Amino acid sequence: MHPPQTLYLDNPNSAVVILDQTLLPHTIKYLHLTTISQVWTAIKDLQVRGAPAIGVTAALGLYIHMKTHAANSADPAAFAQEFKSASAYLSTARPTAVNLDWALNQMYICYQANKHSPITEIINSLHQAAQDIQTNDTKICRRIGQHGAALLKHDMGILTHCNAGALAATKYGTALAPIYIAHEQGINLRVYADETRPVLQGARLTAFELHQANIDVTLICDNMAATVMSKGLIDAVFVGCDRVAANGDTANKVGTHGVAILAKHFNIPFYVCAPLSTIDMSTKTGTEIIIEEREPAEITSLWYTSPMAPKGVKVYNPSFDVTTASLITGFITEIGIIKPPFNL
Amino acid sequence: MHPPQTLYLDNPNSAVVILDQTLLPHTIKYLHLTTISQVWTAIKDLQVRGAPAIGVTAALGLYIHMKTHAANSADPAAFAQEFKSASAYLSTARPTAVNLDWALNQMYICYQANKHSPITEIINSLHQAAQDIQTNDTKICRRIGQHGAALLKHDMGILTHCNAGALAATKYGTALAPIYIAHEQGINLRVYADETRPVLQGARLTAFELHQANIDVTLICDNMAATVMSKGLIDAVFVGCDRVAANGDTANKVGTHGVAILAKHFNIPFYVCAPLSTIDMSTKTGTEIIIEEREPAEITSLWYTSPMAPKGVKVYNPSFDVTTASLITGFITEIGIIKPPFNL
Repeated sequence: MHPPQTLYLDNPNSAVVILDQTLLPHTIKYLHLTTISQVWTAIKDLQVRGAPAIGVTAALGLYIHMKTHAANSADPAAFAQEFKSASAYLSTARPTAVNLDWALNQMYICYQANKHSPITEIINSLHQAAQDIQTNDTKICRRIGQHGAALLKHDMGILTHCNAGALAATKYGTALAPIYIAHEQGINLRVYADETRPVLQGARLTAFELHQANIDVTLICDNMAATVMSKGLIDAVFVGCDRVAANGDTANKVGTHGVAILAKHFNIPFYVCAPLSTIDMSTKTGTEIIIEEREPAEITSLWYTSPMAPKGVKVYNPSFDVTTASLITGFITEIGIIKPPFNL
Repeated sequence: MHPPQTLYLDNPNSAVVILDQTLLPHTIKYLHLTTISQVWTAIKDLQVRGAPAIGVTAALGLYIHMKTHAANSADPAAFAQEFKSASAYLSTARPTAVNLDWALNQMYICYQANKHSPITEIINSLHQAAQDIQTNDTKICRRIGQHGAALLKHDMGILTHCNAGALAATKYGTALAPIYIAHEQGINLRVYADETRPVLQGARLTAFELHQANIDVTLICDNMAATVMSKGLIDAVFVGCDRVAANGDTANKVGTHGVAILAKHFNIPFYVCAPLSTIDMSTKTGTEIIIEEREPAEITSLWYTSPMAPKGVKVYNPSFDVTTASLITGFITEIGIIKPPFNL
């Protein structure tokens, strides 16, 4: 058994097809995104989420948008203008994930290299570039998995927070990649998934995809992480991330920083699993990372049959936090396990 | 504005009336408990919760049950037998809270002192004993509040986990008592309430009662505690507890241990607010405390409009955790702020 496919480019290259992750685990529904505003909304509303998956979706979406544009106008100046504004628009969908800007920048590099070609050739190049981003993501995640799996032995307990699994990427994911590769190698692990309030990516996505893949997974509330650690059930923590600063400070789903502090307290190694593209050398430290705040309703009423908090109560809902570099044992990347200062 | 009353003895002493806390914050409904099985179920199902409130409810419930029994039988041996079995039954409703056994034991001491009196006098004594437990709880909570408030200054930020407020006791509560007393003294605080998964006592009860009392409260998810601490928003943590071992290890709502580790990491004082009756000198260390596990459905489907986790996934749902004594700055009790080793 495998988790369902996260996203793909529809034939005849007219839609980015994504699994609507807001409906998991009870409904498996694919959405066909054919316009740039649909792509923007799908990213904004977490129908597709996870740093690598967001990057691939944006690149494919930009390609489709420019293809549609080119079908209506052959003017190179208008094309250049449209490319710029579409790219800028997509980059506003989620401010924290560096992969979004990284993927859009890869598309821009491709465009720059081909901008004097006929527009049909530019479109073909953008198609190839977007597909390369997708293919490379799968390769990179597999390599992250191989480097991470080398740390794992039979019956180890792994804690993960949020979902940096197959559903967050094109395949394997980042934090779950070592678990999938170990599973392929016949190494049986015990995985503990934090449910990850408020949007419950751990319960709805991580528990779902690992359960689908026949991997031993136990769901806990976020506030039970210290309990399973104190009982000796956890041998390592694997998390993904949205942006790593040059000094190693790491933005990831809110709650990650707390898990890292707990891991340090219990002397449990804490690994961030990420492609090198997540390391943003232009961001010096975590204090420079913009942290997205989301709607209070995610905490007070989302999912619930009745309001779960008093009407009008103040709510603070940061979507990410920044884990201090000193709490991180290592970064499991496609080139191996590295530590700051990074030499990229 | 004040939070509504948690519980009271109905005239003519025929029912324990409790505010059904499972329906808060959207519905205020009082339940009239007239039989011992109703009292047991109300405690088991968290319709009344919080260590002091459970103790008072059990004592009042035992009194009403014995009054009913005495109306049907005047046999002292049958009375003794019924007292014993009813008390043993009530003590099984929640295994972790020491106040439950403590309150039942107070009733037993009263019974022992009066057992040779006529049954109507025994009943009157039990009535007085149960009411004394209730009255003393209010006095004790007020004293805890006074000792705790002495630590507080204008604009301090306080983090609390779960609900150890007025709704967990007869009035004031334990962890929130210093906040209420400071508020009476004109000291304005900023309170951050962890929502406290899975049963959301922080969102439904703590945020509710503080909001009702016009105290500045901000609701956060449990996994955001590290974020508000790292931003310098928290000056102290106040929590209640269900049982304190002789060495100071403290059982409280799951998640408390994690908050204590975070507080230590950020050098924030972490106080446990509790009546001395919560300190169980017969329990040497936290490892001896029995931790109740509750239904997986609390995590996977309670409150939700649709299942929030894959069907059949394993769930671990401990209701409490044990905070290591070394993480606790002090115990705010009715006699002042104390630290282990306790001399009780």
